[in-house]
Amino acid sequence: MKPIKVGLLGLGTVGTGVVRIVENHQEDLVSQTGTPIEIAKILVQDPSKQRNVAIHPDKLTDNPREILENEEIDVIVEVMGGIDPAKTYILEALERGKHIVTANKDLMALYGREILAKASEKGCDVFYEASVAGGIPIIRTLIEGFSSDRITKIMGIVNGTTNYILTKMSQEGAAYDDVLKEAQALGYAEADPTSDVEGLDAARKMTILSTLGFRSNVDLADVSVKGISQVSKEDIAYGKQLGYEVKLLGIAERQDDYISIGVQPTMVKKSHPLASVNGVFNAVYVYGEAVGETMFYGPGAGEMPTATSVVSDLVAVVRNLKLNNGGRKSFGTYKEKKLKTDEQILSKNYILLHVADRAGVLAQITQVFAEYEVSLESVLQHPNKNNPKAEIIIITHEANQASMKKVLKKFEQLDVVDSIKSVYRVEG
Amino acid sequence: MKPIKVGLLGLGTVGTGVVRIVENHQEDLVSQTGTPIEIAKILVQDPSKQRNVAIHPDKLTDNPREILENEEIDVIVEVMGGIDPAKTYILEALERGKHIVTANKDLMALYGREILAKASEKGCDVFYEASVAGGIPIIRTLIEGFSSDRITKIMGIVNGTTNYILTKMSQEGAAYDDVLKEAQALGYAEADPTSDVEGLDAARKMTILSTLGFRSNVDLADVSVKGISQVSKEDIAYGKQLGYEVKLLGIAERQDDYISIGVQPTMVKKSHPLASVNGVFNAVYVYGEAVGETMFYGPGAGEMPTATSVVSDLVAVVRNLKLNNGGRKSFGTYKEKKLKTDEQILSKNYILLHVADRAGVLAQITQVFAEYEVSLESVLQHPNKNNPKAEIIIITHEANQASMKKVLKKFEQLDVVDSIKSVYRVEG
Repeated sequence: MKPIKVGLLGLGTVGTGVVRIVENHQEDLVSQTGTPIEIAKILVQDPSKQRNVAIHPDKLTDNPREILENEEIDVIVEVMGGIDPAKTYILEALERGKHIVTANKDLMALYGREILAKASEKGCDVFYEASVAGGIPIIRTLIEGFSSDRITKIMGIVNGTTNYILTKMSQEGAAYDDVLKEAQALGYAEADPTSDVEGLDAARKMTILSTLGFRSNVDLADVSVKGISQVSKEDIAYGKQLGYEVKLLGIAERQDDYISIGVQPTMVKKSHPLASVNGVFNAVYVYGEAVGETMFYGPGAGEMPTATSVVSDLVAVVRNLKLNNGGRKSFGTYKEKKLKTDEQILSKNYILLHVADRAGVLAQITQVFAEYEVSLESVLQHPNKNNPKAEIIIITHEANQASMKKVLKKFEQLDVVDSIKSVYRVEG
Repeated sequence: MKPIKVGLLGLGTVGTGVVRIVENHQEDLVSQTGTPIEIAKILVQDPSKQRNVAIHPDKLTDNPREILENEEIDVIVEVMGGIDPAKTYILEALERGKHIVTANKDLMALYGREILAKASEKGCDVFYEASVAGGIPIIRTLIEGFSSDRITKIMGIVNGTTNYILTKMSQEGAAYDDVLKEAQALGYAEADPTSDVEGLDAARKMTILSTLGFRSNVDLADVSVKGISQVSKEDIAYGKQLGYEVKLLGIAERQDDYISIGVQPTMVKKSHPLASVNGVFNAVYVYGEAVGETMFYGPGAGEMPTATSVVSDLVAVVRNLKLNNGGRKSFGTYKEKKLKTDEQILSKNYILLHVADRAGVLAQITQVFAEYEVSLESVLQHPNKNNPKAEIIIITHEANQASMKKVLKKFEQLDVVDSIKSVYRVEG
C-alpha cells in the first residue's frame, strides 16, 4: 500500500513526539485510515546533531526546498514555531497544493485568516488543533461538536505556566517571585517568562478560540491583556477566605452581535469547575445557548499530548485525502466582529484597597460606589497588622466596566485611599 | 438555494429541541454549510395532538412511508427511541441511500455494528453523538480527537439520574429511597427507574464508548453491571471520612489487547476530577497512552443539550453531502475483542463488613486477605452504636478480581463475619 508522505518542519519537543507517535502507533493509524503514514523528510537546523529518537540520517535536511518542492510529499506538519520562516513555508506549501497541520499558535492567532484564505483558494486542509490547549481537542469541539449551537461564553485556563504558578501560590501560600523561580528551575517557565506570565500566550489562544466559537474575525489586538505578575499572596489568601481561587482566565463573551475578549487574573468561585483545574493542566469552559455548561480538561502542553493533537490532525488530513476531499474547513463565513464598549462589558469585581484606618472611611468608599450605581455583594474591612493602613476588600455585584473605571478614578483622588492594591474580575 | 430536506422520526423531548434549534439557529447553520436545513416531514403517533412548538400541520404524519419513500429527503433524524420500529426504519432508510442521525443509545449499543455495516455498504453516514452523554461531543472526540492515540482507560459518569441521587445522598446525608422518590417527583427519575438505577443505561453507553475508544467489537453482554440501589448512607459517610465520593462509574480498561468493561458504584478519591461532577451532569474521563489524562464535562440529557448534539451531527451530514462524501465513518477496522479474565482485572477495593465485636476478629479478617495475597491500604474498625456488631472498613491496595472473590467467599464462611455489607471498586 502506498504510504502518505509527510514533510515535518522542525524536530524540537513536539516534532520528536510526532515522530514517536507515528512510529509507535503505526498499526493503529493504518487500521483507521487504511494507509500507512510516513515521515519522509524532516527540516532541522543541524542534521548532524544527536537526537533522542531514532531517525535515519537521510530523512534529515537543513534545506527547506527538499521538502517544499518534493512532489511526493502531500502533507506538511509545521512544528518549528514562530512567525518566520514558518509563515513563508506554509504559504508556499499551500500554493503548491500541500495540506497543512500546524501547532503554531502565534502564526494562527496573527495570520490565521490569511493562511485559511489561501488554503480555501487552493482547496487544501489546514488543521491546527495543537495550537490551543495541547492535548485537548477543543478546536474540533468548537468547529464540529457545537456547530449547531450559538456559543455565548468561552472561559479558558489556556496557559500551563501561569496555572502552575497560581496553583503553587494557592496551595503553599508562597509568593509569586519564589514560585516563578521554582517553575523556571523545573522547566515549567522559560528564562524570559514574559509571554506566559503577562498573558500574551493566553491572548493568542483566546484569539483563536473566539474566532472559532463566535465565527467572527477576531484579531489579537481585540484582546485586553493583564498578566499575573502583580498577583499577591494577600489576594490569594483573601480570595480563599471569600470562597474563590485566583486563576488567569481568558474570557470571551458574546451578547447579541457584540463580543469582548480579555485575559486577566480572575477570582473563580470554588464551586465552578474551572476552580479545581490545577498545576500545568488546561481547561476550556464553553457555554452555549442550547447546550448550556460544558468543560474540556487535559494537558495543555508537553511533547506527547501536543503531538497527539498534531497526529490526530494528520489522520484527518489522510482521511480527507482518501476521500479526495481537501479544504473542507473552508466552509463557513465569518462575521465582521463588533466589539463591546466599556458600558456593555459586565462583570462582578474584587477590589482590595489600602485606606486610612479611621472612622468614616468605609462610608466614603461605599458612597463612591453608590454614586456610580455599582452595588456591592460583600465588604470586608480589617486592620492590617503590619501596616498603619486598614484593608478593605470589596466584591461588587455585576457592574459595567465604564462605571468601574469611574469608581477607580475617584478612589485615586480620595485622600483616605492610600492605594488600590488589586482589581480582579470575579466569575462563578 | 435548495435546502437539504430532513425527515424527523419522533417529536418527543429531543425531537422538539431539534425543531427549535433548526429554526432558531437557521442563519448560523446556513452560514456554516452554505445550505438551508429544512425539517420536511415529522413522524408522530398523533398528528392532531397539541404541541409546544409551532409546526405546520402538513409536516406531521403518522405514516412512516411518507418519509422513508420520499425521494426529496436526504437525511433521517431518528429520535423516537427504543429498538422497534426505529431499527427497521433506519435500515430501510440506509437501503434507500439516506443518511442517518440518531440519538438512540439502546439501538446503537445492541445493533450498532449491523447499522454501521449497512451504512458502509451503502456509502451513507450514520452519526450518533447524542446517544452518549447528551451535549458532550465525546463520540467525535474518541473518533477524531484521539485518533492518533491508544486509549487505555475510559471512566464515565454517563447517567444523570444516578448521579443526581448519589450527589443528593452525599450532600444531604439522605437515604437512597427518599432521594429516589424526590428525583421521581422532579422528573429526574422515571416511574420505573430500573434501567437507570441498576446501571443498564450506563452499560449501553459504555458499550458504545469502549467500542470506539478501543476500536473493538464490544457487546453489551461484555459489560458487568451493578447499580446503586444497594448504596447506603453509611457507605457514603465512610467514603467521605476516607476522602472518597461514591459515583456510579462506567470503567473500560485495556491492557495490551485485553479489555474489561464494568458499571458499578465506585469510591472516587476527592482529588480526582470525576469526584466533583455533581447532579445531573455527566463527564467522561479518557486516559490515552500519549495524551495522558483528559476529561469532558457537560449536561448528559435534556431537550436542548441533546438536540445540540443531534443538530451538530446534522451539520456534519450536510457538509459531507455538499462534498459528495457520505460514509466517511466507514473507515477503520475493528479488532476482535479479547476480554480480561478475573485474574487480569485489577483494582483497589472498599469493603464494609459487620463483624462480631470481640477480640481477635480483626486478626482473623486480615489473615484472610494475607492468605490470598491481597494487601491492605487502610483499615478502620469501630463499634456501631445501633448494633451489637462492630463495623470494619477496609481499603485494599490493587488486587485482582479472582483473589477478591476468594476473599469474599471465605468471609461468607467465617463465623465472626455477620455480613458483607458493601464491596466497591476504588479509583483515583
